[in-house]
Amino acid sequence: MKIEILCTGDEILSGKTVNTNYSYMARRLHETGFSVFWGTVVGDDRDGLVQAFQQASERADVVIVNGGLGPTVDDLSQEIAAAAAGVELVLHQEWLGRIAAWYQARGRTMPPNNHKQAMLPEGAEFIDNPVGTACGFALTIHSARFFFTPGVPSELQRMLEEQILPRLQGMRGTRVATRVKRFHTFGIGESRADQLLDGVEELAPGSRVKLGFQSHYPQLEIKLTANAGSETELDRILSPVEEAVRQRLHPFILAENGDTVEGVIIDNLKNREASLSVLEMDTGGAIAGRLIRAADTKARIRQGLIAVDNEEIARILELDPGDGRETDERFAALCARKLRIRSGSTYALAVLMSRPGTGPDHPPCASIYFALSGKSGTFNRKTTLPGTRNWVLRGATEMGMDYLRRHLLGLPTDERNDFEQH
Amino acid sequence: MKIEILCTGDEILSGKTVNTNYSYMARRLHETGFSVFWGTVVGDDRDGLVQAFQQASERADVVIVNGGLGPTVDDLSQEIAAAAAGVELVLHQEWLGRIAAWYQARGRTMPPNNHKQAMLPEGAEFIDNPVGTACGFALTIHSARFFFTPGVPSELQRMLEEQILPRLQGMRGTRVATRVKRFHTFGIGESRADQLLDGVEELAPGSRVKLGFQSHYPQLEIKLTANAGSETELDRILSPVEEAVRQRLHPFILAENGDTVEGVIIDNLKNREASLSVLEMDTGGAIAGRLIRAADTKARIRQGLIAVDNEEIARILELDPGDGRETDERFAALCARKLRIRSGSTYALAVLMSRPGTGPDHPPCASIYFALSGKSGTFNRKTTLPGTRNWVLRGATEMGMDYLRRHLLGLPTDERNDFEQH
Repeated sequence: MKIEILCTGDEILSGKTVNTNYSYMARRLHETGFSVFWGTVVGDDRDGLVQAFQQASERADVVIVNGGLGPTVDDLSQEIAAAAAGVELVLHQEWLGRIAAWYQARGRTMPPNNHKQAMLPEGAEFIDNPVGTACGFALTIHSARFFFTPGVPSELQRMLEEQILPRLQGMRGTRVATRVKRFHTFGIGESRADQLLDGVEELAPGSRVKLGFQSHYPQLEIKLTANAGSETELDRILSPVEEAVRQRLHPFILAENGDTVEGVIIDNLKNREASLSVLEMDTGGAIAGRLIRAADTKARIRQGLIAVDNEEIARILELDPGDGRETDERFAALCARKLRIRSGSTYALAVLMSRPGTGPDHPPCASIYFALSGKSGTFNRKTTLPGTRNWVLRGATEMGMDYLRRHLLGLPTDERNDFEQH
Repeated sequence: MKIEILCTGDEILSGKTVNTNYSYMARRLHETGFSVFWGTVVGDDRDGLVQAFQQASERADVVIVNGGLGPTVDDLSQEIAAAAAGVELVLHQEWLGRIAAWYQARGRTMPPNNHKQAMLPEGAEFIDNPVGTACGFALTIHSARFFFTPGVPSELQRMLEEQILPRLQGMRGTRVATRVKRFHTFGIGESRADQLLDGVEELAPGSRVKLGFQSHYPQLEIKLTANAGSETELDRILSPVEEAVRQRLHPFILAENGDTVEGVIIDNLKNREASLSVLEMDTGGAIAGRLIRAADTKARIRQGLIAVDNEEIARILELDPGDGRETDERFAALCARKLRIRSGSTYALAVLMSRPGTGPDHPPCASIYFALSGKSGTFNRKTTLPGTRNWVLRGATEMGMDYLRRHLLGLPTDERNDFEQH
């Protein structure tokens, strides 16, 4: 099945809006076993739309059109679709009633131009939009089936999931259940992950599981995409592959599916009825901030402290002059211990940093000192991360999170990761 | 001049990578007085590329092709371009030497497959890439001029700026100087900004200045795009419009061009030889973090404190029980004053928050309390921001920055902004 995605609108064409609707649709189609073979972008312009619809209808079996369903004069999708199919626009009475009710429920009167949103090409299949005033519709133009979808991302996403993908499944004939299993990892690069996972796809009978990677530095997402006749069959074919991924990548897996490393840390603290405080330097509260935003209860993350240098830290924590200054590692450990005691937290994490000099003689990198203090003692680790300042800060933030996670879960904390300097 | 952008590559086609190269190119073309009328995405696939090149050459005057210039077998741009133009690939000896030198300078030997990157269609115009091993080239296919550019964003951006845009200028005939003047604002929505700036374009002789908006919530960017015969003329036509924008939007303008609100705050602190400490609650260090990352000297931002609730804040700042608890506004003011004294900073900013209950009876919103303490006294302000938690946190962070900026610059701090609840 040849699928084309046709995005319309001046905002997308002119680059004012980045075309995330395109990548979202293409990704979801791939994850459900379809593939996109062509993408087109045109503006809110009659000639361009006519030509784009014409060409798409000649080369594709399915065309998903995004945008142009709004109430204003530059929203042209219905009009051009009707012209391309050689039919008239007719009023979809039921949808007009829904739009009017939508406005009424918000204590407003429907503006007259919304009437336009209920005009559909004659013979078009109505597609529901439960979260907006732009309904979708499907229409055959020449031999291609066109699906028209709204440009608002949340409306598009819901319509794609609930309406378009099931219809495409239907067109494919056999009913196929699909699933994407995701593992979020930190510390392994794509090429090492690829090596470590060599052959896992073959553990599923009938090679119906596909392995894929999506890199969002510093995390690497590992995706298993599967197709089967039923949910039970999906469980059956995915389970040996999932198990193999967990075994081979074990300590590097931060979380699975919709979970996050922050969520895993917060859950662990909750189960122990434990609390945490964090001291940061250049990462500027990025670790504490992520944990605080993820925490649904107040008691788990007590304090976050940020200070620019060792002297300032010594002032905040009221250290004695010279205390722990023998090495940066010892200083980090002392700070973590002191913060735990002062804050009354069960754990305290310190992520400190020394900024190397800048200039051509100094390749961009930074030394990072992690320390975690708990009732059973204080642990620390040093690393060097190469890269630009922004790159290093993102790596240090993630590695700080991971250092904490590994301690809480009893995993090895000294394992070298792929982002550290050799 | 009809310009098409043709993006190639499976990563873009499948949605794995969001197509930011497209939006970057389209935006820069618009800013320099060109416009894009068509966008195409195809994969690393011979048939698709042949068809896309053919169709683009029929409808466009200029086609910018992005991607497919790498050393691997799935990089097909040169090969398909040569076939489409009916010529052979020939070795560009000079570029091969440059690639070899590039590797040598990094202490490595050029892998044999990089040889492919120096094979260009016969008669193609070589386009330099000073920062990578994929050179660009230009070629006429039918009557359209094709420009081939690398997929790596930093390489593409430099080539577009230094090589492609000047060539397009040349094709346009008259040499036109272009400039984009940017104002970064906080507190006004697009529709109010549009009203306030009504008529500013006409202040430039010959309507050669165009006003545009780009919303990156919570900031709104206001762009003046101008075309003229020379830089001097650009100064002349832009200056009355710039002045009018500054006058009409004055207190809402955070920074201009490449400057940021963080940079403006840091510069102001530097000029006063002043320092700052920040206390945050739900914003989790976002304000302190942005300032710390923007500060090039250590002394300006001394401490950032993050705490989950008033009790934890009272513990960190060692407040007496009940102190300042009459109202949340008074508590924020007390905290700012106490933090300033304890930290020895010239200023202290507190941004606290009360989380309303959740559930259907509570529309999503939050109360935010800003307080700034300096030598001349302590000031505070309360606001309510509507929206989802993430939306509110972003608004509160920006408004906290802006509250500080307005104090430092002596601007009104009680002016209502468009994001506050009425």
